[in-house]
Amino acid sequence: MGTSRQGSVRGTVDPFIVMDVMAEAARLEAEGRTIIHMEVGQPGTGAPAGARAAAAKAMEDDALGYTVAKGLPALRARISQLYMDWYGVVVDPERIIITPGSSGAFVLAFTALFDAGDRVAIGAPGYPSYRQIFKALNVEPVDLQTRAENRLQPVAHDILDAAKDGGRKFDGMLVASPANPSGTMLDHDAMRALIEACAAEGAAFISDEIYHGIEYEAKAVTALEISDDAWVINSFSKYFSMTGWRVGWMVVPQDQVRRVERLAQNMFICAPHVAQVAALAAMDCDEELQANMDVYRENRRLMLEGLPKAGFDKIAPPDGAFYVYADVSEYTDDSRAFASEILNEAGVAVTPGLDFDPVRGATTLRFSYARGTADIIEGLARLTAFMSARAG
Amino acid sequence: MGTSRQGSVRGTVDPFIVMDVMAEAARLEAEGRTIIHMEVGQPGTGAPAGARAAAAKAMEDDALGYTVAKGLPALRARISQLYMDWYGVVVDPERIIITPGSSGAFVLAFTALFDAGDRVAIGAPGYPSYRQIFKALNVEPVDLQTRAENRLQPVAHDILDAAKDGGRKFDGMLVASPANPSGTMLDHDAMRALIEACAAEGAAFISDEIYHGIEYEAKAVTALEISDDAWVINSFSKYFSMTGWRVGWMVVPQDQVRRVERLAQNMFICAPHVAQVAALAAMDCDEELQANMDVYRENRRLMLEGLPKAGFDKIAPPDGAFYVYADVSEYTDDSRAFASEILNEAGVAVTPGLDFDPVRGATTLRFSYARGTADIIEGLARLTAFMSARAG
Repeated sequence: MGTSRQGSVRGTVDPFIVMDVMAEAARLEAEGRTIIHMEVGQPGTGAPAGARAAAAKAMEDDALGYTVAKGLPALRARISQLYMDWYGVVVDPERIIITPGSSGAFVLAFTALFDAGDRVAIGAPGYPSYRQIFKALNVEPVDLQTRAENRLQPVAHDILDAAKDGGRKFDGMLVASPANPSGTMLDHDAMRALIEACAAEGAAFISDEIYHGIEYEAKAVTALEISDDAWVINSFSKYFSMTGWRVGWMVVPQDQVRRVERLAQNMFICAPHVAQVAALAAMDCDEELQANMDVYRENRRLMLEGLPKAGFDKIAPPDGAFYVYADVSEYTDDSRAFASEILNEAGVAVTPGLDFDPVRGATTLRFSYARGTADIIEGLARLTAFMSARAG
Repeated sequence: MGTSRQGSVRGTVDPFIVMDVMAEAARLEAEGRTIIHMEVGQPGTGAPAGARAAAAKAMEDDALGYTVAKGLPALRARISQLYMDWYGVVVDPERIIITPGSSGAFVLAFTALFDAGDRVAIGAPGYPSYRQIFKALNVEPVDLQTRAENRLQPVAHDILDAAKDGGRKFDGMLVASPANPSGTMLDHDAMRALIEACAAEGAAFISDEIYHGIEYEAKAVTALEISDDAWVINSFSKYFSMTGWRVGWMVVPQDQVRRVERLAQNMFICAPHVAQVAALAAMDCDEELQANMDVYRENRRLMLEGLPKAGFDKIAPPDGAFYVYADVSEYTDDSRAFASEILNEAGVAVTPGLDFDPVRGATTLRFSYARGTADIIEGLARLTAFMSARAG
């Protein structure tokens, strides 16, 4: 029947470079080596026991058919309560839409907000899938090169300058705080300045808050403290430790609820029912989740002590999440090769910065401390020995 | 902070008209009336017991983090086996990609295959979300008005004629067999003719096979019996009775696997892990699934006997799925009002055809027999009494 159709231009997205690292790590493990995994972006823990118990019960009591597109009303009400508990903010449950992970929320938000050809500002470094999803939807992502003095976060000038210079305005901006890969946060003033700049330019403002709850020195700021016009995306994957369950949520402006609901009906039908039940129960598992936080906190302490000693001392302020992003320009201008060297020589898998920043990522690495503390201790020892041998 | 951004043009999708029916039914139920639900498009049964047991066990034994983007290798291997068991066709597991329901597969396939402005032929009547997802992705769906003598399915001439007339060619075609809302199937020759017409015109061929397994007189034909270049979409929602679990799959041409995998990584990360585990076990629950089929079979028999007696005798050949699609042009030219009348007078919720065919759906209704047999008996009695009173 001949060769198959070639496929679309927009469907040709970039591969994740970290996949090469993971494949190489798997190969080394198959050869019998033990590898410390500092490349992973997810908790090593499963869903809290209460969540699993609720899911198990629901499987016996309920046919678990489709939920309504916006998600279980009880879950949406409970998330509304979380905004009061965590931030003292009132959020009408009607504005909350349950999504198949934050991934589903990105697809929904981007489709609801932007037409083909629209331009959306994102910070570099940033989560690689933003760029790829935008591309798949014919929206143009524009990297804002962030600066160390701004905690590797975009600033209002980036939005206002584009308009001032007579360049094309942005149709939207997407920020993440705490950010991946840097772990840095926007404080209240920085967030407000960005939201006001976007409002002044008529650009939509999307706030990716997936790492909220995993913060160390200060509580993360939600965009909803500042504006009800922000689109806020969150998930049960990180703080609630439920990556594989694929359930997240989005808060949208009141006048956008019906449009987003209709899109969700057509594009997803609903988020997984059993995961919604589990997520609702997870929200009352604070004790277990805080025990996970104790591990991250100790891991972070070890990393902030051990990485500089090993030679990785140019790091972004690790305000939240479970990552340390390091400038390694004194050691390499090829982070991919450097990551491969670290993996093969030290037996530690790390993520080359190129996935997060196609320009400057050639001289950065991301270290994750999402796994157990014993792995962090061993990983740091290996990195120290490796860097010491390399210097000698 | 001012009013929110208006949102995209492409994100403005049509509402489902059946939602009005469902809201009205809920209102009547709140008033104390019992309503028979012939509008629902999902089984009343839950996942098979074996599937639920496997999910419960996995929740205790495994952290259930992200799976690889293509899905659990064991599930993909088992689906490959299903193609051998059901159709005698060899499908390399490498070509199988697990998706968040067939919805996720549509988003993936449409993005991977079509660029903005491309035109894709779909049969009318058809599943309403095809049209809306295409629109959200800036792809133009073109309704082919099907004919009763072709079992309400498109035919090869529809594709070839467009090119012959000097009109713009299609970039793709999407068929469903068994179809929703009609339940009709394409036999081997009809499927082959469509695939050959698409190949001749350079159009991609997508086959929605979500209702396979729910067939009555003959086995449904998979496009993979005819061509390895077809894109085939299926799901665990219908035959395997797992709607709310959101797990489906797609078979793509060998040379498209890497592209689709990368898109899936970015757009979804993975299908829900626990649902993949449950789906794998469901594939060995034939006894329970065949008991579900016995119910559908009896329901169908009752419908084919009772609907014509009630006056609904112009129906599409109900080859598969759990729907009967009726031409009601002798009673109304406003299926929405007619459905509302049936709901209020007879207490039976049915779906107006307008959701499936914006043109001719004003004179059609879809009756679902997915629920229990007692409901079917009661629903048919009510419909008969209502139509008889109406005629009198």
